[in-house]
Amino acid sequence: MKKFSLKTLLIALLGVLVVTWMGNLANFGKVFAQSTDPLPSWNKGATKSAIIEFVQTTTDPSNPNFVPLPERIATFDQDGTLWVEYPMYTQVDYVFDRVPVVVKDKPKLADVEPFKTVLSGNKEAIAKLSLPDLEKILVATLTGMTVDEFKTEAKKWLETAKNSRWNRPYTELTYLPMQELLKYLRANDYKTYIVTGGGQDFVRVYSEQTYGIPPEQVVGSAGSTKYGYDENGQPMLTKEPKLLLNDNNAGKPEGIHLMIGRRPYAAFGNSTGDRQMLEYTKAGDGARLSMLVLHDDAKREYAYGPAQGLPDTRVGTFTQALYDEAKKEGWFVISMKNDWRQIFAFKS
Amino acid sequence: MKKFSLKTLLIALLGVLVVTWMGNLANFGKVFAQSTDPLPSWNKGATKSAIIEFVQTTTDPSNPNFVPLPERIATFDQDGTLWVEYPMYTQVDYVFDRVPVVVKDKPKLADVEPFKTVLSGNKEAIAKLSLPDLEKILVATLTGMTVDEFKTEAKKWLETAKNSRWNRPYTELTYLPMQELLKYLRANDYKTYIVTGGGQDFVRVYSEQTYGIPPEQVVGSAGSTKYGYDENGQPMLTKEPKLLLNDNNAGKPEGIHLMIGRRPYAAFGNSTGDRQMLEYTKAGDGARLSMLVLHDDAKREYAYGPAQGLPDTRVGTFTQALYDEAKKEGWFVISMKNDWRQIFAFKS
Repeated sequence: MKKFSLKTLLIALLGVLVVTWMGNLANFGKVFAQSTDPLPSWNKGATKSAIIEFVQTTTDPSNPNFVPLPERIATFDQDGTLWVEYPMYTQVDYVFDRVPVVVKDKPKLADVEPFKTVLSGNKEAIAKLSLPDLEKILVATLTGMTVDEFKTEAKKWLETAKNSRWNRPYTELTYLPMQELLKYLRANDYKTYIVTGGGQDFVRVYSEQTYGIPPEQVVGSAGSTKYGYDENGQPMLTKEPKLLLNDNNAGKPEGIHLMIGRRPYAAFGNSTGDRQMLEYTKAGDGARLSMLVLHDDAKREYAYGPAQGLPDTRVGTFTQALYDEAKKEGWFVISMKNDWRQIFAFKS
Repeated sequence: MKKFSLKTLLIALLGVLVVTWMGNLANFGKVFAQSTDPLPSWNKGATKSAIIEFVQTTTDPSNPNFVPLPERIATFDQDGTLWVEYPMYTQVDYVFDRVPVVVKDKPKLADVEPFKTVLSGNKEAIAKLSLPDLEKILVATLTGMTVDEFKTEAKKWLETAKNSRWNRPYTELTYLPMQELLKYLRANDYKTYIVTGGGQDFVRVYSEQTYGIPPEQVVGSAGSTKYGYDENGQPMLTKEPKLLLNDNNAGKPEGIHLMIGRRPYAAFGNSTGDRQMLEYTKAGDGARLSMLVLHDDAKREYAYGPAQGLPDTRVGTFTQALYDEAKKEGWFVISMKNDWRQIFAFKS
């Protein structure tokens, strides 16, 4: 009988082990990733530490604040929290671009406000349009489309339209630190949701590609739709001018209950419109995380909001009262200027 | 240097391989499961074959009708499709049981219809209550509770209440073949949703434990909630008497658009209330599956619905027109009597 040396035996065993290891490469990668910094675009500090401590606490089975997998829910406001909202929400830019199309169909609108102002191209006047004006335009430009038509239209616009300051598609203006945060939470089995005051159907068009968040995890303001049949008897859903969910302020926790049915463990926002969502989140049992993004970086992005002594704007109102509540309730304020090493994935 | 025999070497290698195999047991189990019958409680026939063909077609990357993972959505009606709905929906039984509690708080209701009839205990009269009567009771018994109180209450009731015919908790009256179907679809990366005309909050209380469907994958009829604060300043959501979503008939595809934002690839129902969901599903591109459960098993469960020449009932109306549409549109009708080898997990 042939004999083998210990060396041969060890080499053979090593060979098998290497193959085994390679089979486990996916797991290995996961472990390796955990030992490196999951948030490289965040500067060291209380905010970054709070995020990491929250994740470690809630995912450690030996910790009293451990959160079972199915309950791991994190909600994110979108405009101003995940991407640029200043000087105007992306969806408003989209809707303005649709006004000429609508006026072509209904020429009488050209002489009616607020359409007249939008068509004038007068940027100063457009910037002064009120929220009810914007709603009027929204309803006029979207109503009567099928949900499939809307999706196709909005997708086309997003592929070609560019933000005027950075001359890049809007979908590139997401904050790199928040993208890292989304991935970090998901790597720890948190289900990430967008909870936006913006239009649910609009955000769903790009959320999967832009943030890795599927449409069913986008909660937003939503008009009702009407089920019917086209001329060939094919079923279709048409957008109606009736607001079903106003996903701002108290509408955020109400929308979360309706669409998710669980209280989030972590919530992120940037304005008074997110206040109730952050309150509701933080008021739950155990370890909960509520954070507000503060736009205090005039150079790399924008600085706005009265908490900084700057004029209030139509978007992203960060009032002194909100700042005070954050401090009182143990929420964290993310300073874009100090907490973020880099703001965008591209060089700005 | 010590030498080892070939036998020793082989035994050592075998040992390592066994450990490797054990590490892969999960995968092995998956492969093994696929080679056995995934639907053992279904009798052989056109219905079972259609389900298996649909799953194989849509999950085979070489098939032109392959469906990418994130788009794999299957929706299920609940009452009468996943569990017993006859002679009365479970939630109605729950609401009736709550009437005395409500009347204790508001004694005047005892003399007002329909509460008077419910309190009389006269089964014949109760069975004749109209849908608007039931809605009146629903609103009276639920309004003003916080969503957390409701959850606790309903959970407690479900743990103790029993169905009168089988003398078992309602949550045991699920159809075994449908439970197998849910698991089979999920094993093939379909996300399974309940889309019910019943109360969303009620179904969410037991959906995870009963079907493995988490609350965020339950779409149902829903009242609005109101965000506010309790006496200690803690945030709370209170149930309001306003119906926000009526998730029946056209409300089903509308609810699917609102809550999921994608058209399902497979949909299962059992009554005219599911018609539009099945139409909407079947009208999509590629391979789509629409199926209706027909209650034609008077012995093991119930037989009802005019398509069988039986009297129409308040629940689960399966009209001749629905039957005709199913045949015309290529939907499948699941005969409980012929297609299901076993109906419940327990011996009945």
